[in-house]
Amino acid sequence: MAKDQKKQPRPKAETPKGFRDYFGADVTERKQMLDRIAEVYHRHGFEPLETSAVETVEALGKFLPDVDRPNAGVFAWQEAEVPGGGAGDWLALRYDLTAPLARVAAQFRNDLPSPYRRYAMGPVWRNEKPGPGRFRQFYQCDADTVGSASVAADAEICGMLAAALEHAGIQRGDYLIRINNRKVLNGILEAMGVESGKPADDVLRTIDKFDKVGEQGVRQLLTTGRKDESGAEIEGVGLRPEQADPVIAFLTSKGVDNAATLENLRAAVGASVTGAEGVEELSQISDMLAAMGVGEDRAIIDPSIVRGLGYYTGPVFEAELTFEILDEKGRKRQFGSVAGGGRYDGLVERFTGQKVPATGVSIGVDRLLAALRAKGLMGGTEQGPVVVTVMDRDRMADYYAMASELRAAGIRAEVYLGNPKNFGNQLKYADKRQSPVAIIQGGDEAERGVIQVKDLILGAKIAAEATHEEWKSQPAQTEVPRADLVAEVRRILG
Amino acid sequence: MAKDQKKQPRPKAETPKGFRDYFGADVTERKQMLDRIAEVYHRHGFEPLETSAVETVEALGKFLPDVDRPNAGVFAWQEAEVPGGGAGDWLALRYDLTAPLARVAAQFRNDLPSPYRRYAMGPVWRNEKPGPGRFRQFYQCDADTVGSASVAADAEICGMLAAALEHAGIQRGDYLIRINNRKVLNGILEAMGVESGKPADDVLRTIDKFDKVGEQGVRQLLTTGRKDESGAEIEGVGLRPEQADPVIAFLTSKGVDNAATLENLRAAVGASVTGAEGVEELSQISDMLAAMGVGEDRAIIDPSIVRGLGYYTGPVFEAELTFEILDEKGRKRQFGSVAGGGRYDGLVERFTGQKVPATGVSIGVDRLLAALRAKGLMGGTEQGPVVVTVMDRDRMADYYAMASELRAAGIRAEVYLGNPKNFGNQLKYADKRQSPVAIIQGGDEAERGVIQVKDLILGAKIAAEATHEEWKSQPAQTEVPRADLVAEVRRILG
Repeated sequence: MAKDQKKQPRPKAETPKGFRDYFGADVTERKQMLDRIAEVYHRHGFEPLETSAVETVEALGKFLPDVDRPNAGVFAWQEAEVPGGGAGDWLALRYDLTAPLARVAAQFRNDLPSPYRRYAMGPVWRNEKPGPGRFRQFYQCDADTVGSASVAADAEICGMLAAALEHAGIQRGDYLIRINNRKVLNGILEAMGVESGKPADDVLRTIDKFDKVGEQGVRQLLTTGRKDESGAEIEGVGLRPEQADPVIAFLTSKGVDNAATLENLRAAVGASVTGAEGVEELSQISDMLAAMGVGEDRAIIDPSIVRGLGYYTGPVFEAELTFEILDEKGRKRQFGSVAGGGRYDGLVERFTGQKVPATGVSIGVDRLLAALRAKGLMGGTEQGPVVVTVMDRDRMADYYAMASELRAAGIRAEVYLGNPKNFGNQLKYADKRQSPVAIIQGGDEAERGVIQVKDLILGAKIAAEATHEEWKSQPAQTEVPRADLVAEVRRILG
Repeated sequence: MAKDQKKQPRPKAETPKGFRDYFGADVTERKQMLDRIAEVYHRHGFEPLETSAVETVEALGKFLPDVDRPNAGVFAWQEAEVPGGGAGDWLALRYDLTAPLARVAAQFRNDLPSPYRRYAMGPVWRNEKPGPGRFRQFYQCDADTVGSASVAADAEICGMLAAALEHAGIQRGDYLIRINNRKVLNGILEAMGVESGKPADDVLRTIDKFDKVGEQGVRQLLTTGRKDESGAEIEGVGLRPEQADPVIAFLTSKGVDNAATLENLRAAVGASVTGAEGVEELSQISDMLAAMGVGEDRAIIDPSIVRGLGYYTGPVFEAELTFEILDEKGRKRQFGSVAGGGRYDGLVERFTGQKVPATGVSIGVDRLLAALRAKGLMGGTEQGPVVVTVMDRDRMADYYAMASELRAAGIRAEVYLGNPKNFGNQLKYADKRQSPVAIIQGGDEAERGVIQVKDLILGAKIAAEATHEEWKSQPAQTEVPRADLVAEVRRILG
């Protein structure tokens, strides 16, 4: 019987699976990076927008409330019943920053300037199976222009992205923005006579294999098929040999500069009107980037950018970091993509029925931050506060006066607030806090009007390197008059 | 039959009920304020912490997963079934920043410094009935010290709060931090002989009525009862007349300064050990604040702070703004409370079984922002970007070059991206963007190597005030050489 009266078990102190917390420098470094990016966006006339984290499932789209629990991919829940009004709305956490922008652009279309340039930074949530390094809450950082069909808007986004990466700390030469156009690809398909449907999908899939199988391999896959390395027979798409020519021309169109690439693309699209339009748009983007002072060492036309093309309707772009880093196994590898975007339609149309063209870019916040850390541009261990130790529990007010003096001089400082009995624990605490300096004043020092100032960085160095004699001379600790507190700490901090 | 094939209706472009979006200055002003507060917290040795927005319902506490849908007060949902492992966890959006701190302090207790000082800023969610000005997502801004039982930690929080308010823009004299101690109140109850249970609750309720009914009224309510204004008989608590003395002494204990108040409180708590301890703690806090340079014009002992006392276990504090503002009906009223906090126990204990004392403060972000706006310290309409208008669609590159030059000079600028056909629309757009300057260059000007620079602020002034003659002379628009673009814009921006 007593067994039945179980004590309430203690709750587990755990983040839900796939979620994590950010401490100290993890928070400030990301903030610093986003602040730098926001500065660039703002200077380009973009306005900040912070939508609510919660949207109706209906407004989010993609996930419609026609099933009992529409939580595939999103975190969703149903509102309580409306009294006398039937079932409550399904709500969900936003899964990106674009869907909420679409909702805002439609909801406030009479109040917002048109075109509307906005940037947004914040967490988004995905109800996915968590994995190593894969989290269900992460930051996105987007900039979009809604309501302009002009490719000038696309060029602007690309130029602004280059400026943002540099302002965040990525040096010129360490990144490259590659620009392509969905219309060019459509033109190629047109020139091949496979505008849409399964053959078009097959061609797109084959294009993606170019890096792996090369020109000859693509030709084989588009026509009669090929044997892969294992000897297995891969079925071909079944096109005639001459139908493969435009694709090959497209895939090998990258020239020494934009002018050459555009020339090759013009030839590749042949008589396709869509294709010619796409090439002309790329040409305009190239001219506008040049006018903005963004050279081809920073942003370049590159037909090999096909990833994600299915989602977009016009220009697409991707920013890659071109330097090498060492992976966890010590192997060199390219850092890769940190941002991507392009022009998309049908965004606001879902709500209003009217076409509203839009273009935008999303920076991978975690990846860019990792890149800055890999380059040593961030993540240097931040110096902790000066720790005022407590020798005499009854003189806390004195210690607080010291900390206040230091802060007033702009120096980060704190008083030890643990149990002061064991002085060793206080120094261990200062060590954990990465404090550069500890202040010590016992009753004896207080009477004499002095303090001990301990240089913890020098102290650690001496402890690691010094002889016993040097150690005994304690050069890392100095006695100074109480009035010299700030001056002495300043001297040590340098 | 055709009727059944209904077209999918368009989704409604609406935020869910009780949620809202923040645009432009709403975002930047809050950010600016929080940045200023974070600076102060950081200088005091506090570390930022950003926990995930999602917690297990179990870790959040208060809302246990023992009902089918534990979403009273929180937004909660159940994870999908674990394959072969039964029902999934209940997850929820955090409803404050303290519950996640407790979870973090328990989860990372071996890694965090102790005491652990942290600050946190971010949205929290409440599943409440939305009302006018009452939202279901709002910001909180907290600072807490976990693991110190010393009242020095409380004093530090109060001093830091004063510094934060001032750094955010609230002037000295416009705020007052009032400090009380739950232990003093317990001591009063002890001195009355009504330590706990219904009589104690009745006394606490009566204390809250002091402002309304005064000393005589409280005496009546504590003893035999009284008639209210309507003549209705209110039952008394039934205490003996002398039992009411300590409460009255407590309620009237506020003296001309802390020393006098403490003297009065010492007398009021009589022989109660708890009460004496509480008064001694307040005395220490008073000394420490003085040592920190925080005078009684900024933080003061005030026994009238009883609100929320039930939640806390020791010192409690509240920051009030003391200036008057006009309410929506033009009546003067005190701005009131913008921050509150105190010492609380049992926070981490829920998880670990070990007592971990903690103290902290939460600033009401929206209220403080409203106060800064009411004082005219924020919310001045931000100047928009310079707008480079488009007279010739084929020369977008030229216009982009102008915008780039302006940005390189640190001037916010953008090119008009709408349909350029109607020039009036471009000026209307510039107006909506609150642009100070518009740049105009048609084909004629381009040929002559000049630009028109339109001073939109002066222009609006002239339009409102000028005579027809003045209007015609167009002093708000100047033609300058193209090379003088930046210089001329700088001249106008002043």
